[in-house]
Amino acid sequence: MKKIAIEDLKDIATGAAFLGTGGGGDPYIGRVLAMNAIQEFTMPEIVDADSLADDALVFTIAMLGAPTVLGEKAACGDDLDLAIKRLEQRLGRKADALVGIEIGGMNSLVPVVAAARLGLPLVDADGMGRAFPEIQMVTFNVYGVSCTPLSVTDDHLTSLIVDTADAKSAEDLVRIASVHLGCSVVISSYPLSGAALKRSAVKGTLTLARDIGKAIVRGRKEGNPVDVLVDYLRTTPYYNQCKVLFDGKVQDIQRETKLGFSIGHCHLAALDGSDRTMEISFQNEHLVAREQGRTRAIVPDLICLVDRETAEPIPVESLKYGQRLKVIATSAAPIMRTPESLAVFGPRAFGFDEDFVPLEDIPN
Amino acid sequence: MKKIAIEDLKDIATGAAFLGTGGGGDPYIGRVLAMNAIQEFTMPEIVDADSLADDALVFTIAMLGAPTVLGEKAACGDDLDLAIKRLEQRLGRKADALVGIEIGGMNSLVPVVAAARLGLPLVDADGMGRAFPEIQMVTFNVYGVSCTPLSVTDDHLTSLIVDTADAKSAEDLVRIASVHLGCSVVISSYPLSGAALKRSAVKGTLTLARDIGKAIVRGRKEGNPVDVLVDYLRTTPYYNQCKVLFDGKVQDIQRETKLGFSIGHCHLAALDGSDRTMEISFQNEHLVAREQGRTRAIVPDLICLVDRETAEPIPVESLKYGQRLKVIATSAAPIMRTPESLAVFGPRAFGFDEDFVPLEDIPN
Repeated sequence: MKKIAIEDLKDIATGAAFLGTGGGGDPYIGRVLAMNAIQEFTMPEIVDADSLADDALVFTIAMLGAPTVLGEKAACGDDLDLAIKRLEQRLGRKADALVGIEIGGMNSLVPVVAAARLGLPLVDADGMGRAFPEIQMVTFNVYGVSCTPLSVTDDHLTSLIVDTADAKSAEDLVRIASVHLGCSVVISSYPLSGAALKRSAVKGTLTLARDIGKAIVRGRKEGNPVDVLVDYLRTTPYYNQCKVLFDGKVQDIQRETKLGFSIGHCHLAALDGSDRTMEISFQNEHLVAREQGRTRAIVPDLICLVDRETAEPIPVESLKYGQRLKVIATSAAPIMRTPESLAVFGPRAFGFDEDFVPLEDIPN
Repeated sequence: MKKIAIEDLKDIATGAAFLGTGGGGDPYIGRVLAMNAIQEFTMPEIVDADSLADDALVFTIAMLGAPTVLGEKAACGDDLDLAIKRLEQRLGRKADALVGIEIGGMNSLVPVVAAARLGLPLVDADGMGRAFPEIQMVTFNVYGVSCTPLSVTDDHLTSLIVDTADAKSAEDLVRIASVHLGCSVVISSYPLSGAALKRSAVKGTLTLARDIGKAIVRGRKEGNPVDVLVDYLRTTPYYNQCKVLFDGKVQDIQRETKLGFSIGHCHLAALDGSDRTMEISFQNEHLVAREQGRTRAIVPDLICLVDRETAEPIPVESLKYGQRLKVIATSAAPIMRTPESLAVFGPRAFGFDEDFVPLEDIPN
């Protein structure tokens, strides 16, 4: 059993912003919520996935909506408690632990808030090892766990319990409801057994997020944060294929909140005096990075924009004209690159007419 | 205890089409579903509201959506069972009886189908003594019964359990979901005690619908169905204020399926050679009848269009250019005309800038 120290929250938030690949909501908000919850309630225990009993009952807990809104209208706390309670009520059984659905962005820390409030252990794992915009884009779904019954709540304590035939139908219905409820709701989904979690989760990601954050802080002290970050990523079990794809300046940004998502493109011009340009497309998260039309990295591999001096990860909603950024791409966890996973969140699932090519197989 | 005879279903359907005031969905569909359910399952027992135990648990069951769609995509049966089951599961208790939410249109017979399938008694009552388009427009809501928790299901066995702060919020959320699910869903709402039902229901309306149907049939045999119908209505406890407002021909009809409703206007020209015209406005149900701009009858009083020869009630979705119709208006049940009720489903609740005036107080 490990505990999260208050001082770890900032590192987790920074690492989660990196793993959010532009999306997942601003983890600063998650960090503030987590600090408050830990101070008011309790320090949650962090448990390894492999220590769970096979018959343990684990729920995910997350916020869902448009990141642009999530930062302004975060969980109030009672909505987190209610989402868990409604799902427990439906299943006739108490949850034994919570797990993140995504480690990227705000949803790295929302489970810390809920675990602190409810005194539940939190599993050091998630369902993607990054962030993704839709409910079905989760390893739990890929490997046979039903995302329903799921609960949705809002800060007026509206609640929904949803059952659908498949995860994409749940996504469509919950998305419609989330837009109606103001583009920011709490969702508790994928109630799963310890055995199913051990089989299908991306493990150790809360710790990884923390250590990514620590590497960035260490790099700042040493005066070369992007280099230290990349060096650290190369030692990790998932993000070890790692390239700095581009060093550039934001030249143009098209971004709209549409159908409950932040959708758009960011154009970068090289800082090295050449006429190289890069275009990054996103749906909440960055999906593809193309240089002069040629794909340099594509989903589910991670594409992260960081400040070129401080390595601070820049979320989509904070992109601005003139920002000087480095584009870092890394491999996704192996479980995310299987044919089964690519069918659910590979390039074609996002409407791109191209196959996934692992980052390390794409020529520079 | 009374039973519904198969031969009563046709009369109930005809009476319910009249009480549907243009909306509530085509009760022919409800009749066919009810006949099948009674033949396959059982003949449901009909019980008087006042015979219920105070602590009995009663659910409403209905279809919700745009009448134009409800007629093409009706309940499959399993969706009715599931809606009841989900609500029972949530409340941790079996339903003791079912009751209609509205007696107008298809929803007069949907509870018969569900009661037959599940072997539950059906209460001879409803929550409006007519039809209305929205979930909050129910006497149960007016008199303090919460409409949630409620369940929504569709024919793919999608299910939702919804809790909201008030009935209008439930309406807004369920409407959005119903549009997403195809404008035709099943809803079980207003779980209420026998005591609450006795206090807030419009009683005896299933029997009244049947007897309205019988009056129309009898009138056809006698050759003057509209007269016989009006004479019968004058003997009823609720619909006794009754006028034939207009005898005319459909000159124009504007009707669109918008926001999950059938919304529009029907213009009638007099058949007596005069230049009198009448305009009927509807949102699923007819809401106001105006002659040369002057209000002749207004919601919650009932405005019904019937074939001038056969007294067959004509629903909004069957209105056609050239149809010859009589416009019959009747009083609503007294419980529907109180200040509390008018606040929820009086003219202003539908966006009309005028107060309710009882039909009998409006000069001819």
